[in-house]
Amino acid sequence: MRAQQRPESPLFTERTPRVVAARRLLRRREREQTGTFLVEGPQAVREALAVGLVRDLFATEAAADRHPELVAGTVSWLTERALATLTETAHPQGLVAICSTVDRPLAEAVGGDPRLVAVLAEVRDPGNAGTVLRCADAAGADAVILAGDAVDPYNGKCVRASAGSLFHVPIARGVPAAAALDALRGRGLQVLAADGAGDTDLDELTDAGGLAAPTAWLFGNEAWGLPAELADLADRRVRIPIYGAAESLNLATAAAVCLYASARAQR
Amino acid sequence: MRAQQRPESPLFTERTPRVVAARRLLRRREREQTGTFLVEGPQAVREALAVGLVRDLFATEAAADRHPELVAGTVSWLTERALATLTETAHPQGLVAICSTVDRPLAEAVGGDPRLVAVLAEVRDPGNAGTVLRCADAAGADAVILAGDAVDPYNGKCVRASAGSLFHVPIARGVPAAAALDALRGRGLQVLAADGAGDTDLDELTDAGGLAAPTAWLFGNEAWGLPAELADLADRRVRIPIYGAAESLNLATAAAVCLYASARAQR
Repeated sequence: MRAQQRPESPLFTERTPRVVAARRLLRRREREQTGTFLVEGPQAVREALAVGLVRDLFATEAAADRHPELVAGTVSWLTERALATLTETAHPQGLVAICSTVDRPLAEAVGGDPRLVAVLAEVRDPGNAGTVLRCADAAGADAVILAGDAVDPYNGKCVRASAGSLFHVPIARGVPAAAALDALRGRGLQVLAADGAGDTDLDELTDAGGLAAPTAWLFGNEAWGLPAELADLADRRVRIPIYGAAESLNLATAAAVCLYASARAQR
Repeated sequence: MRAQQRPESPLFTERTPRVVAARRLLRRREREQTGTFLVEGPQAVREALAVGLVRDLFATEAAADRHPELVAGTVSWLTERALATLTETAHPQGLVAICSTVDRPLAEAVGGDPRLVAVLAEVRDPGNAGTVLRCADAAGADAVILAGDAVDPYNGKCVRASAGSLFHVPIARGVPAAAALDALRGRGLQVLAADGAGDTDLDELTDAGGLAAPTAWLFGNEAWGLPAELADLADRRVRIPIYGAAESLNLATAAAVCLYASARAQR
């Protein structure tokens, strides 16, 4: 395919208007105005292609040689230098796609019969948000809600940390946490707040069968945790037991422990 | 205390020799040559003081006003600008300590009667290493081994991600993974390799009582995983069940799930 395509489409440089336009998607405002974002690297591009969300795919010739299966469709060929201007990584892998955003209205994200949902209240670090997305996906969560004033999930760091899970798990964003919890409770889910100061021990709750029911987990911000007024909206405030001297877990590892405890209990 | 101290010790600037010497500790080679490293921020400095490892403490007057309990001992007073040259964070919190390194020989780190140990093979990202340290501490691990060609645990990002756990959990480093596993098996621990391609399911192993025994968990590198020759040294290769469409978990969340599964089984 490639050998046929290339003569038809000249190599784009960093000054080619379509490359210039794509580069603007490194900025949040441009992503929000266009409803598109950048995905880079073979794994993420493969996932985006699989769900039919790629609007434009840029590739270098070297990357096409490594991943011929990814450039079988319409591809814009780029110089290495032009491609480097579209990525934020030190060692770009030669593939960048412009994708349509994937978030959906809350009612749609938690439609169907959800049994496990993660609600992140005001998550601000893109790496954390992406890691929790990946972990929620692995644990079989039905949706992830980025509630309140959250990081843009289409930030490059979040996209990379999600390792493709952005394309697997329904996501809603921008909704107040209280509204999200109301909606989830309306769909029959219990709400558990992960809270280091909680009065329910995760292990004891597990032993008592308290994780078998459909559950929405509420997680606080990575720096300041969960405000009391939000934690109070939960049915229970659940503490992950600390067996050593650490004060707490970080957001992503706490989410991993809680979501996997639920996934196991719901099997 | 402060009011008495300050007249005795003039404000150091970024050109004061002791500040210049401290700044060199931002480099790995200097840390290795001196056996010291930098710790910043009130939480980490508090932990370092608690275990008696602080050799020199630098503080700004503003930080002393916020944390008078931390500057009750000998303190070198710094200008804000001088302090900024000692930190790698965008919003330094006015406190930096020079601390003695904490790693110890393998035999000492796994001495006593260890029941839960994390072995990281060739971990390269300082944030990951620090997060796993924090998580291992929370799960009550008796030691963490940074095996093979690992990241420097005294890298500022690792120190910050560990959130003080660097001072709680015995650490050994620089030992080949195979030697670490031999030593741990010699102390009666089973060796479980966390391996996405493993033939044992973590949940099934838990149900079968296979996590009750003293256990060393072996984790691979964040990018390329666990080489077969290392995974083959384990008693079992254990797969964390993936309930959704994610291909895998990242290092820190995988470690969280495995270490907490063991901690719970060993209760």
